[in-house]
Amino acid sequence: MRVAVIGAGPSALAQLRAFQSAAQKGEEIPEVVCFEKQSDWGGLWNYTWRTGLDEFGEPVHCSMYRYLWTNGPKEGLEFADYSFEEHFGKQIASYPPRAVMVDYIEGRVKKAGVRDWIRFCSPVRWVAYDEGSGLFTVTVHDLLKDTVYTETFDHVIIASGHFSVPNVPEYPGFGSFNGRILHAHDFRDAREFAGRDVLLIGTSYSAEDIGSQLWKYGAKSITVSHRTGPMGYAWPDNWQEVPLLQGVEGNTATFADGSSRQVDAIILCTGYKHHFPFLPDDLRLKTANRLAIADLYKGVVWVKNPKLFYLGMQDQWFTFNMFDAQAWWVRDAILGKIAIPGEAERAADVVLRIAGEDAGKDSHDAIHYQGDYVKELIAETDYPSFDVDGACEAFFEWKDHKVKDIMAFRNHSYRSVMTGTMAEPHHTPWKDALDDSLEAYLRD
Amino acid sequence: MRVAVIGAGPSALAQLRAFQSAAQKGEEIPEVVCFEKQSDWGGLWNYTWRTGLDEFGEPVHCSMYRYLWTNGPKEGLEFADYSFEEHFGKQIASYPPRAVMVDYIEGRVKKAGVRDWIRFCSPVRWVAYDEGSGLFTVTVHDLLKDTVYTETFDHVIIASGHFSVPNVPEYPGFGSFNGRILHAHDFRDAREFAGRDVLLIGTSYSAEDIGSQLWKYGAKSITVSHRTGPMGYAWPDNWQEVPLLQGVEGNTATFADGSSRQVDAIILCTGYKHHFPFLPDDLRLKTANRLAIADLYKGVVWVKNPKLFYLGMQDQWFTFNMFDAQAWWVRDAILGKIAIPGEAERAADVVLRIAGEDAGKDSHDAIHYQGDYVKELIAETDYPSFDVDGACEAFFEWKDHKVKDIMAFRNHSYRSVMTGTMAEPHHTPWKDALDDSLEAYLRD
Ligand SMILES: Cc1cc2nc3c(=O)[nH]c(=O)nc-3n(C[C@H](O)[C@H](O)[C@H](O)COP(=O)(O)OP(=O)(O)OC[C@H]3O[C@@H](n4cnc5c(N)ncnc54)[C@H](O)[C@@H]3O)c2cc1C
Ligand SMILES: Cc1cc2nc3c(=O)[nH]c(=O)nc-3n(C[C@H](O)[C@H](O)[C@H](O)COP(=O)(O)OP(=O)(O)OC[C@H]3O[C@@H](n4cnc5c(N)ncnc54)[C@H](O)[C@@H]3O)c2cc1C
Ligand SMILES: NC(=O)c1ccc[n+]([C@@H]2O[C@H](COP(=O)([O-])OP(=O)(O)OC[C@H]3O[C@@H](n4cnc5c(N)ncnc54)[C@H](OP(=O)(O)O)[C@@H]3O)[C@@H](O)[C@H]2O)c1
Ligand SMILES: NC(=O)c1ccc[n+]([C@@H]2O[C@H](COP(=O)([O-])OP(=O)(O)OC[C@H]3O[C@@H](n4cnc5c(N)ncnc54)[C@H](OP(=O)(O)O)[C@@H]3O)[C@@H](O)[C@H]2O)c1
Repeated sequence: MRVAVIGAGPSALAQLRAFQSAAQKGEEIPEVVCFEKQSDWGGLWNYTWRTGLDEFGEPVHCSMYRYLWTNGPKEGLEFADYSFEEHFGKQIASYPPRAVMVDYIEGRVKKAGVRDWIRFCSPVRWVAYDEGSGLFTVTVHDLLKDTVYTETFDHVIIASGHFSVPNVPEYPGFGSFNGRILHAHDFRDAREFAGRDVLLIGTSYSAEDIGSQLWKYGAKSITVSHRTGPMGYAWPDNWQEVPLLQGVEGNTATFADGSSRQVDAIILCTGYKHHFPFLPDDLRLKTANRLAIADLYKGVVWVKNPKLFYLGMQDQWFTFNMFDAQAWWVRDAILGKIAIPGEAERAADVVLRIAGEDAGKDSHDAIHYQGDYVKELIAETDYPSFDVDGACEAFFEWKDHKVKDIMAFRNHSYRSVMTGTMAEPHHTPWKDALDDSLEAYLRD
Repeated sequence: MRVAVIGAGPSALAQLRAFQSAAQKGEEIPEVVCFEKQSDWGGLWNYTWRTGLDEFGEPVHCSMYRYLWTNGPKEGLEFADYSFEEHFGKQIASYPPRAVMVDYIEGRVKKAGVRDWIRFCSPVRWVAYDEGSGLFTVTVHDLLKDTVYTETFDHVIIASGHFSVPNVPEYPGFGSFNGRILHAHDFRDAREFAGRDVLLIGTSYSAEDIGSQLWKYGAKSITVSHRTGPMGYAWPDNWQEVPLLQGVEGNTATFADGSSRQVDAIILCTGYKHHFPFLPDDLRLKTANRLAIADLYKGVVWVKNPKLFYLGMQDQWFTFNMFDAQAWWVRDAILGKIAIPGEAERAADVVLRIAGEDAGKDSHDAIHYQGDYVKELIAETDYPSFDVDGACEAFFEWKDHKVKDIMAFRNHSYRSVMTGTMAEPHHTPWKDALDDSLEAYLRD
């Protein structure tokens, strides 16, 4: 049996680790081939200065930027089978910068020894399912040899991420705006905007975090325009929230309340698309970015063809340990240890999940909803059980800390639900910590 | 018989016009289906403010930018079957801005009535050739319906361009440079760089023209770094040519001669790649950007499979009328009016062409070489014959004008080889003409 995994970000790496952990316990596992278009693993966490198209002419996957620290506490995402303490030899503060996170993500899979399951510089160009043979053909471009080949697989697991392909709306006048317009996906270094008046569109994590960075690294002013409603935090003085942008003329932006201002740059923090240019209609997921995703039984099995799986396609409160829960579950489904029901039952499961999410009324409910999903999956596999409700509590505290002081929430610490240890406070308040290196963060 | 054309830029539009002109003369023509990923025709000339990925998540094709005027005289590129005078009702000045060129390109194909041969918002995802049936299958994504379908064709003509996918080298320190790094492909508005110190890498048309625009629209300084040698024009005072970049640290760039300077932005004017992510190995062109292109008999027929054609893949002195010469030739090959020899002869033709180009010693020879190629092709079809040597003369004058005054060459005029009319000088010197609209350019 052969299994193809598409991508080598956190979700795919969870899948490799899941299979490896079964093998370690003496189980027979299929041949797993992982295709990754980048030259290294880590997915979005693999930072590059590049934007647009990369050195091979492929779309740049990375949406992360310099000086990025996690936006939620690490206590919400910790691997149940590989704690921060195990990796760093000590407990560390709760909002690590990207480089620290990369080190942690890599630590587990280096230990597992799965790197040689991955073919790097190998974008998947096309996947097709053949009813006759019951196999998938996967067409891959080996960028280093510049040659395209096809192999067959019994199962395909899609873990290509969904926060990479930007959703880029247009507003009147963009074609003749005299400043820079970019999507958050192409944002790289806040210092480029020092001394500048910057307009952000959107009110979710990207707007909040990029705005905060611009403030920290010396932008002249930050204006955030909302479609639905303002974020409403107690922002610094040079930060304004305004209604939706109506259009731009020259360098002047005008908003729905008639107000206007001069801006040097516009950053569209307007989210991402689920985008699978390598999939035909019968295999391609089409969904909104939400917790209960369309057409995926148990959030992972393609309703129309249960040999195809998707990982990590949900909007995310939980991340790494949710990907683990999914990966362990998918492994056991492929190994035949979990039975997948017929199509009608799979479809009914999706309907129920959507109704369950829709019944929630706020982010508190949403966090519990996703926590319950994680609990549901890990109950069915040997993934180490952990205090999911405790992780939810860390999220609730985090949200309170943001309301208290949006520029200081990253100075707080939380208790690990894996080891029970309380994190130390970080040695420097986030707003003063300009060096985001691993060395700086881990120093006592 | 069915023919697929991939792209709806100037090359593909030449192909549609070639078939339509045969039909107009009473010939029977095959069904022609043109697939274009953008929502409009014009190829690179179809300007957008977007960079990176577009509203559908597809790579943005456009490499053009605001305020772009043609970099060579229009007398070198004029259509032999549709003159500037026919289109504008008068002769116009010799270096039209982009909007004027788009109007001209569109004029001919609107008159021909071929727009409904084109399926817009339709990127081709995959092409395969089936030996058994002798047909190509073309897999296309209809972005508006978000559905992928496959159709079969007897011939495929690839006209997807090769100045869209950037060649993006990396230099030491790019990962921690504190300013903006972009490729010329993503350059949009020179005003974004007003008051800034900008470094350009490369010494070809993009470097020359983007540098000139930066100067015109108020950059503080322009530094151009070369790998092979400087351009050597008499540049303005705030413009320096320096040897190759060695690396950056913070905002400081250091060059091969040990000199260094502070820069706010780096624009990589380092050319483009022939990139065909939709083609398997047996159909995919791999070539350097040169006049005698690898593996194309007569510069258009795929040596390994003569049912497949490529248009416009050469480096370009001649553009529109060369694309016409190719399109008329390909049309007649498909209609069976021109015989394509066997594979050995096709391969031998390529060898000769490469030797012919290599024998030239300077750009003068190169221009003649490409002029001779255009003459060769048009001699074999009914494309209106024109004074190709006269067009070469316009190119030689243009080169002299650049040496005389690089910031003033666009103020000169040349004689049309199609109508014999001398162009009027433009009403405003290029450096003072800040408005690049069609209305401003055409005003008397
Ligand atoms: C700006 C930003 C900040 C974030 N910060 C946090 C944070 O602080 N904490 C947190 O927990 N989460 C964060 N996230 C959420 C993030 O989604 C997850 O942390 C995680 O990266 C998702 O993992 P993934 O493997 O599902 O997808 P990705 O990380 O997106 O990995 C997908 C992989 O698939 C590869 N791929 C794509 N297409 C192909 C193809 N055709 N062929 C081969 N390979 C392909 C890509 O190159 C990539 O390596 C952030 C997201 C963004 C955008
Ligand atoms: C910055 C710049 C300035 C230039 N200025 C001049 C100038 O002043 N004068 C001049 O004569 N030439 C100029 N050129 C040269 C230019 O190459 C030609 O003018 C002309 O645009 C080439 O036409 P084309 O049809 O071959 O390719 P393109 O214009 O590149 O058109 C290719 C088309 O194919 C489409 N396409 C690509 N992939 C797919 C797919 N998979 N499926 C469907 N459709 C696809 C694209 O969307 C595009 O519409 C310039 C080029 C650049 C980069
Ligand atoms: N570690 C970090 O610090 C960090 C930083 C950035 C992002 N992230 C992660 O990245 C992921 C994506 O977050 P995101 O903020 O980019 O996307 P997102 O959560 O999907 O939010 C999209 C935002 O764009 C707005 N929007 C969409 N279309 C719009 C339009 N046409 N006009 C105006 N507004 C529009 C939405 O507004 P409505 O509310 O009106 O729909 C919403 O505010 C999340 O997982 C997040 O955690 C993490
Ligand atoms: N209308 C206009 O005004 C206009 C404007 C811009 C472009 N264009 C058109 O666009 C097309 C492309 O022109 P272009 O200038 O973008 O590309 P190009 O002609 O292919 O030139 C590429 C340049 O990049 C340099 N280069 C490549 N790799 C490099 C590396 N690793 N390090 C340093 N330098 C490197 C090359 O240097 P070497 O010489 O050392 O190889 C060369 O100078 C042309 O058809 C041109 O006419 C037109």
